[in-house]
Amino acid sequence: MQHHLQKAGEALEHLKSKHPLVHCLTNGVVKNFTANALLATGAAPAMVEDPVEANEFARVADGLLVNLGTLDASQIESMKAAVTAANEASTPWILDPVAIGLLSTRTSFAKVLLERRPAIIRGNASEIIALSGQSSQGRGTDSRDSADAALGAAFALAEKTGGAILVTGPVDYVIQGKQKVSIANGHANLTRVTGIGCAQGAIAAAFAACAQSPFEAAIAAALTVAIAGDIAAETTKGIGSFQIAFLDALDGLTPAILVERAKLQ
Amino acid sequence: MQHHLQKAGEALEHLKSKHPLVHCLTNGVVKNFTANALLATGAAPAMVEDPVEANEFARVADGLLVNLGTLDASQIESMKAAVTAANEASTPWILDPVAIGLLSTRTSFAKVLLERRPAIIRGNASEIIALSGQSSQGRGTDSRDSADAALGAAFALAEKTGGAILVTGPVDYVIQGKQKVSIANGHANLTRVTGIGCAQGAIAAAFAACAQSPFEAAIAAALTVAIAGDIAAETTKGIGSFQIAFLDALDGLTPAILVERAKLQ
Amino acid sequence: MQHHLQKAGEALEHLKSKHPLVHCLTNGVVKNFTANALLATGAAPAMVEDPVEANEFARVADGLLVNLGTLDASQIESMKAAVTAANEASTPWILDPVAIGLLSTRTSFAKVLLERRPAIIRGNASEIIALSGQSSQGRGTDSRDSADAALGAAFALAEKTGGAILVTGPVDYVIQGKQKVSIANGHANLTRVTGIGCAQGAIAAAFAACAQSPFEAAIAAALTVAIAGDIAAETTKGIGSFQIAFLDALDGLTPAILVERAKLQ
Repeated sequence: MQHHLQKAGEALEHLKSKHPLVHCLTNGVVKNFTANALLATGAAPAMVEDPVEANEFARVADGLLVNLGTLDASQIESMKAAVTAANEASTPWILDPVAIGLLSTRTSFAKVLLERRPAIIRGNASEIIALSGQSSQGRGTDSRDSADAALGAAFALAEKTGGAILVTGPVDYVIQGKQKVSIANGHANLTRVTGIGCAQGAIAAAFAACAQSPFEAAIAAALTVAIAGDIAAETTKGIGSFQIAFLDALDGLTPAILVERAKLQ
Repeated sequence: MQHHLQKAGEALEHLKSKHPLVHCLTNGVVKNFTANALLATGAAPAMVEDPVEANEFARVADGLLVNLGTLDASQIESMKAAVTAANEASTPWILDPVAIGLLSTRTSFAKVLLERRPAIIRGNASEIIALSGQSSQGRGTDSRDSADAALGAAFALAEKTGGAILVTGPVDYVIQGKQKVSIANGHANLTRVTGIGCAQGAIAAAFAACAQSPFEAAIAAALTVAIAGDIAAETTKGIGSFQIAFLDALDGLTPAILVERAKLQ
Repeated sequence: MQHHLQKAGEALEHLKSKHPLVHCLTNGVVKNFTANALLATGAAPAMVEDPVEANEFARVADGLLVNLGTLDASQIESMKAAVTAANEASTPWILDPVAIGLLSTRTSFAKVLLERRPAIIRGNASEIIALSGQSSQGRGTDSRDSADAALGAAFALAEKTGGAILVTGPVDYVIQGKQKVSIANGHANLTRVTGIGCAQGAIAAAFAACAQSPFEAAIAAALTVAIAGDIAAETTKGIGSFQIAFLDALDGLTPAILVERAKLQ
């Protein structure tokens, strides 16, 4: 584990000096918070929605996030165009299949995207189970399945894509190939502020441009978000001030803090 | 009044334990704040925009908000689909006819929606007057009519829909049938932060899933927002910190605080 | 310079008493923050997107912002309709050509808009250079050209439109006709919070409705944002709390503070 932890610290250092440009095609609820979370972490956000421009921009970006939270017909076109460009340019891209399972448009489209081999898939247990084709019990962004229950699905997805799978929950799991690590950091308020999960997908895209593998990038993203949550919870009570303290904690995060606070197994 | 106040307290308690799922079709300016305000109050937000999915989702949600703030052709389709599903599933839905009167697309569409009988209509005086078919003087989200002037229109709308009408202003009024209560809580900064009014519509949808009637739900929503504003104003000066303190106040609100601070008549 | 500074103070005083109604057609990342920044400054925001309504609304607004940050086909229609109405009603409108140069849809459309003669154009060096038809080096919202390098392009644009050009950077420049002033206020965190630049465009639209000329309006907008940033930086470290303190600083800004802190040349 010490090995993975050291790599996460190095990835954060690299991110804070490289300022990777992250193209986010994400939902309308979280665009602002995602952009600020990327900036606080050290990355440069950009959200280019027009299909022609999304294709142009994904070619120059260092990483791409595709988040299905408020998918509609026009965003489907933009996402297809951006993923095509990213794959042609070997830009790593992240799939966040928000609330799939219950909702038909995004569930079919997520399966189309899966064939395009995202470097990292990030989802809660219900989403990961649904994406693997099994029956899940999600309701909106709430998972009703346990992360443990999703591990089989995550290994199957990892085999299919060759990339990493980040399963979020009270304990996060990162899977790639036969490898698995768990991250036991993180405060309950992380799920009570809109968009922290979605921002984690964007942060994973930033790390994918800075780490040695999707696996190391996903671990670094999970640690970064969970530890910033731990720090924010120490000085705040309500979720309004927690949200702000979380951005401040991302802004102040260093490799040393990351390594010291990590509960990696 | 003591009777209504007790019910508002019970509704808040119910909301905080039930975590109702609120489907919001709302404007692009306030999606993030609305979601955080719902979470802080104790509800679970979801914003599903694709017409097919909006129909699917409104069937499983506990309440639905339809807010016309940045209406466009694509949102009209989503709103029709969601309201149809909500009515079929007997899910209460709330209409917030933002800035109608002046603007033609939303004014006609609000009248179509009115026929579908929202459980609660929430608007400022100018919007309520315009929705009732009278001539109003609104300009954007600013009301230029007094709440008193809107009471006649509100009673007419309540008769038409059979639901509750929440008329917002320095004093809020809630109308249903022949009943009327007024809520004299609330700080001027509530109108100086974008989206607090819109979030109130979403909170009303959450209460509609938890209270005994639309009338009690609208009273509880009006009290919740106004009292959180009172609390936030006690510790802040500018509207930046007020916005955050408002979310914290929603997060910390209890039935006891609600009952103690309420200025209900 | 004392002359321009006095006019900026008067414009702020006028803005805070007049509460100009600013119609914003802006990108999805910054709508909420832009609305709150306008409210904190003293203006009334409205974001009306439907093309028919955008035309109706631009006729009654006091100023209009057209920001190309997340341009798509539907927004192009709304922007055309709103600019037509604004020009017919002699309402000043501001063009913020976000990230043009690299991206083809917005670059062509910005040139179409340029012919409609915006009162103020606001952009970083790369955007100003690209708009003038020269080759630039921007990447997303990051400028890779220096403001000094953009001054020639800014004078050319000013001649073409007859309006003012605000070139943002570590030092901001405002150009009109043969006149040029520079504003040396402003903290690095202003570029590390999403949407402060975009909000400046909206604030410029508010000032355009209150100042004696586009030139004075652009100076007042540049001073307002930069000085609020200076104030916010004095009490905060991370960009989460900086963002909130910035809104509070806008809310508390007075002509006297503006005049005292201004570094105008």
